[in-house]
Amino acid sequence: MQIGFIGLGLMGRPLALHLAAAGHELHLWARRPASLAPFADVAATCHPDPAAVAARAEIVFTMVADAPDVEAVVLGADGLAVGAHSGLIVVDMSTIAPAAAQKIAVRLAAKDIEFLDAPVSGGEAGAIAATLTIMVGGKPEVFERVKPLFGKMGKSATLIGPAGAGQVAKACNQILTGVGVMAVAEALAFATRSGVDAAKVREALLGGFAGSRILENHGSRMLERNFKPGFKAWMHQKDLRIVMEEAHRLGLALPSAAATAQMFNAMVGSGLGEEDSVAMLKLLERMSGQEL
Amino acid sequence: MQIGFIGLGLMGRPLALHLAAAGHELHLWARRPASLAPFADVAATCHPDPAAVAARAEIVFTMVADAPDVEAVVLGADGLAVGAHSGLIVVDMSTIAPAAAQKIAVRLAAKDIEFLDAPVSGGEAGAIAATLTIMVGGKPEVFERVKPLFGKMGKSATLIGPAGAGQVAKACNQILTGVGVMAVAEALAFATRSGVDAAKVREALLGGFAGSRILENHGSRMLERNFKPGFKAWMHQKDLRIVMEEAHRLGLALPSAAATAQMFNAMVGSGLGEEDSVAMLKLLERMSGQEL
Repeated sequence: MQIGFIGLGLMGRPLALHLAAAGHELHLWARRPASLAPFADVAATCHPDPAAVAARAEIVFTMVADAPDVEAVVLGADGLAVGAHSGLIVVDMSTIAPAAAQKIAVRLAAKDIEFLDAPVSGGEAGAIAATLTIMVGGKPEVFERVKPLFGKMGKSATLIGPAGAGQVAKACNQILTGVGVMAVAEALAFATRSGVDAAKVREALLGGFAGSRILENHGSRMLERNFKPGFKAWMHQKDLRIVMEEAHRLGLALPSAAATAQMFNAMVGSGLGEEDSVAMLKLLERMSGQEL
Repeated sequence: MQIGFIGLGLMGRPLALHLAAAGHELHLWARRPASLAPFADVAATCHPDPAAVAARAEIVFTMVADAPDVEAVVLGADGLAVGAHSGLIVVDMSTIAPAAAQKIAVRLAAKDIEFLDAPVSGGEAGAIAATLTIMVGGKPEVFERVKPLFGKMGKSATLIGPAGAGQVAKACNQILTGVGVMAVAEALAFATRSGVDAAKVREALLGGFAGSRILENHGSRMLERNFKPGFKAWMHQKDLRIVMEEAHRLGLALPSAAATAQMFNAMVGSGLGEEDSVAMLKLLERMSGQEL
């Protein structure tokens, strides 16, 4: 199949390579030519702009940072919509606001272009291992057509609902993982400050109701003081900004997400933005005067 | 073995019955005689006060509500310490402040009485099924002597550290479960308010980093709108009061636990204290004007 891929960063590069490995022909465009280097040895054509990619592909994936980037690539002057043929499917795997995804879907529908929002969870490691969780919003028949390709990128792809629903699920994911990292950092700091072996506490609690993937994975990295990303704190800050903007729009109070969003603001402000979100433990320790 | 048990409520009753079923002879005292009725058919002797229980037992378990109750039973005028022989082991399974447990341990040590703090996680269902997680503070040799009895009450018993360490681990457990319930309620309310099927979101997220026992178990009860306890909100409120008092004493900021403690205060204030902690979802909906 002829497949377009735009956004060849930490997440997009391994995903595009999985599709090439599955025998598909790639059509690429990148702002920085260096991003195209890893595709020298696969069946890939580089194009001068997104419009040219759209002209050659049946399905185009985008995986960029934020809503303005998606809008520029999809709806901009030489964007996908300009070069698109009727029936093209655009699949945005970036994490953006549900309302922004819905707006793009409406704009593309007016030109007979199909759209799925398909944000992912699992980070760079999940992208490389093709074990991502993919949350999809859009029409069922479009989802079915893209599903075999999702299968090359993740271990599960779920159609949550209509356009924007994938982003709503991702926002829920970022509430749970962000607040989860915060709570695990608080529990481990509490144990240590109380003079108790935090590793033993984590071990004892893993089997009970407090057990979670975050306590298991992120808790272990906190105890090893391994703050290497993974998933950078500034990206989690951005995702929680989206959550809090949506909560504002919906008139919905989210007290624990709000407290956590403030802490991610403080992480970025205090120079921890490029570290993994587990560096939340460092911030907590610094705040209370006991960084190890 | 001759075993004392004081505190025959929702949690204590099934635990004492497990010990009787294992062939031990029980020595009981209860403030309300009605609490003794379930023990009519087992090998159990009822005593007029805790001191009399201590005189007959090798090990005495207590499972009451809060620190003042433990102190009354253990150190009061006719408490366990009054009737105790040298070498008695007192095991408190209540959830109280680490500092309170340490104080009791010191007071008992002065009379040659051994003490373990051994709070549990898993709720009434875990007590009945003998699948509790038991977190223990105290001396290793005392822990080893009580371990076979813990094995009749829970699926795991871990010696975390010296006196009070079990309560520190339990406080960590209550941070993780309390904040976890809050975050799951927020995520599900966010999905519903966004017009998306919250059950599908939960299902999609369970397999990824957002996966947790709380999302699985408590999330499912929220979606079924089953608010029957389980673990009552006023008890979680009490446990987070202990956490926040300790955090105050330690000079340690716990932002997400603090936000969650405030919400448990509001649950109790708005008449949800006797419901399960998953009724947090109701509070969140009421606050933002959309209780279903």
